Amino acid sequence: MRERLLAAEQVVGLVWREGVLHVLDQRRLPGEQVWQACHSVSAVATVLAEGALLGAAARLICSGYALVLGARQRVDEGADWRAGLQVDRDALCAAGLPAQEGERLLARMQQRLAVMKPGAQALAVLEDEARGAHQRDREANLAMAQLGVELIRGFQGNLQNLMSIGCAGALAGGGIGTALGVVRAAQLEGLLERCYLGESRPSLEGAHRAAWELQREGIAAALSADAALAHVMKERGITWAIVGAERIAANGDVLGVIGTYQLAVAAMHHGVRLMVVAPSALIDLQQESGEEGFHDLGRGPLAYSPHERITGVDEVAPRYDVTPGDLVDFLVTERGVIERPDAAKLTQLMCRKRLH
Amino acid sequence: MRERLLAAEQVVGLVWREGVLHVLDQRRLPGEQVWQACHSVSAVATVLAEGALLGAAARLICSGYALVLGARQRVDEGADWRAGLQVDRDALCAAGLPAQEGERLLARMQQRLAVMKPGAQALAVLEDEARGAHQRDREANLAMAQLGVELIRGFQGNLQNLMSIGCAGALAGGGIGTALGVVRAAQLEGLLERCYLGESRPSLEGAHRAAWELQREGIAAALSADAALAHVMKERGITWAIVGAERIAANGDVLGVIGTYQLAVAAMHHGVRLMVVAPSALIDLQQESGEEGFHDLGRGPLAYSPHERITGVDEVAPRYDVTPGDLVDFLVTERGVIERPDAAKLTQLMCRKRLH
Repeated sequence: MRERLLAAEQVVGLVWREGVLHVLDQRRLPGEQVWQACHSVSAVATVLAEGALLGAAARLICSGYALVLGARQRVDEGADWRAGLQVDRDALCAAGLPAQEGERLLARMQQRLAVMKPGAQALAVLEDEARGAHQRDREANLAMAQLGVELIRGFQGNLQNLMSIGCAGALAGGGIGTALGVVRAAQLEGLLERCYLGESRPSLEGAHRAAWELQREGIAAALSADAALAHVMKERGITWAIVGAERIAANGDVLGVIGTYQLAVAAMHHGVRLMVVAPSALIDLQQESGEEGFHDLGRGPLAYSPHERITGVDEVAPRYDVTPGDLVDFLVTERGVIERPDAAKLTQLMCRKRLH
Repeated sequence: MRERLLAAEQVVGLVWREGVLHVLDQRRLPGEQVWQACHSVSAVATVLAEGALLGAAARLICSGYALVLGARQRVDEGADWRAGLQVDRDALCAAGLPAQEGERLLARMQQRLAVMKPGAQALAVLEDEARGAHQRDREANLAMAQLGVELIRGFQGNLQNLMSIGCAGALAGGGIGTALGVVRAAQLEGLLERCYLGESRPSLEGAHRAAWELQREGIAAALSADAALAHVMKERGITWAIVGAERIAANGDVLGVIGTYQLAVAAMHHGVRLMVVAPSALIDLQQESGEEGFHDLGRGPLAYSPHERITGVDEVAPRYDVTPGDLVDFLVTERGVIERPDAAKLTQLMCRKRLH
């Protein structure tokens, strides 16, 4: 299964090649494929700040590479690269990396440096750690895709209609995607009739990114207005709603792209199972509930384009919403699957030894 | 109340003046206010076919005037205007007037002609019937606004946040609107904090029509992405979701603009009351359930604009959906209010003598 998933892989949004980070500019999709070559921290910060790249995992991986780029530049300039790591982290956070993710990224880098073997090159160690995080995300995607598809087959072994929202795919991370990774695996296993995608207004990431991604790999996709998802769920006999997450709080609250909560409510009403697919790196046991999580993820409105605005009318377009764990039938992580995530189950999952 | 509602009226989308029908082109809103002057049946048919005018009541009123325009033209040409009524009805149906509404409109006109007083001018009788239907819709809007706001006050007498979707306002009929008529009355009665509107993709009638309408009358409106409605409902303490309808079937099924069903499911989940506001002219006891209703209302997809399309990805964007009567807390018509509409209650309502 792992090899078949890798053989089918067509969409890659992030490439680290010869010390340069290349990012596919998601704003230009589906019309154009334009790559941004990032040679510096500030280039990566611009990519984050301008929304050329969305997705929690993708943001983390790029930020890791950015710290390598920053350290290399300071080494070249004879500056204090160790102190610079913190400066660069702050620049990434100012550009949109959540404070807490920045904190953990820096801690991981510094821990690697602290246990560095004598004689090793610090820059090589930093680069190894950044590549390792990228590779771990790829592997987590592959593991989750397999766990997710086994879950689907466990309930029903024939062709099924699935539904997703946002873009929890290859573009949002370092591998084949979280929710869309499961969809890819379902396709390979002959379980997928069609995947219905909410267009995910106002960012349109479902329409412009997820749909593009699936189409590129020949996977049957259908785009739906977000307002029509409950209707489509009922009319087309959807069996699973499969979504990604930005973060998961200790109590099982899922912080996801706006629309996830509404999809979860509709799924419950229709007896459609909801599967949240997220690497365990996004589970934060320090964060008690979803409510807190908005602060550093940024709750500000996503602006509409100017031609859509009406003077005198307010806009409410939050980027994220919170889905309580009791609406989540299954949380699929690379460490294993949890039914109806809550504090006890998440703590147990995170204490488990990794098996791969 | 009636006088205050009329005094506050700022938005009119249909005007019959000196034998010409003037229609505000809804496609050009909110940017421009362009009026189309219709001197013939074919001009009205074009308005219907091209989507310059949306809304079941508005469509019916315009079609009534169109039959007058057609008859007048045939009289001027010395043609058989009586036989022509059927031809014109067919042309309107081909342009988007549902077959059944065309049938009932023609029957109403012919009935008026059959009971015409001796010596009366047939054209004047036709015009009187068309104006009467327009006036009845205006009066129904006023009556429903008052019934709706009394209902709201009956549960809670302070400032409230309401929610709607689509454009069930003045632009969709001949008066102050159905759902938005209730919102206007709530504003006048000091019950409205703010009205949240789903943008109603892909037609954007919520964003471009409803929001424009409320803003023109100084009513606090906030626009939300359709995917965010459940989240906004929870976060902003919405007390009522108030929507219009395209048609209501005998069993209480509400055929409404796409997104109504999803809003109804979210409302139930949050304990938010759902009010459907529709003139009794839209209740069709001949239609057993909502499922049948799609056929003549047109189930075809609303196309996305070309820049939103992705080759190889299907689009699912139905215009309408069905909300079962048991999700409807109250159906407000000008004949009275029904709780959880079903076949027995609707039959009773429609047999009641009109009181105005």
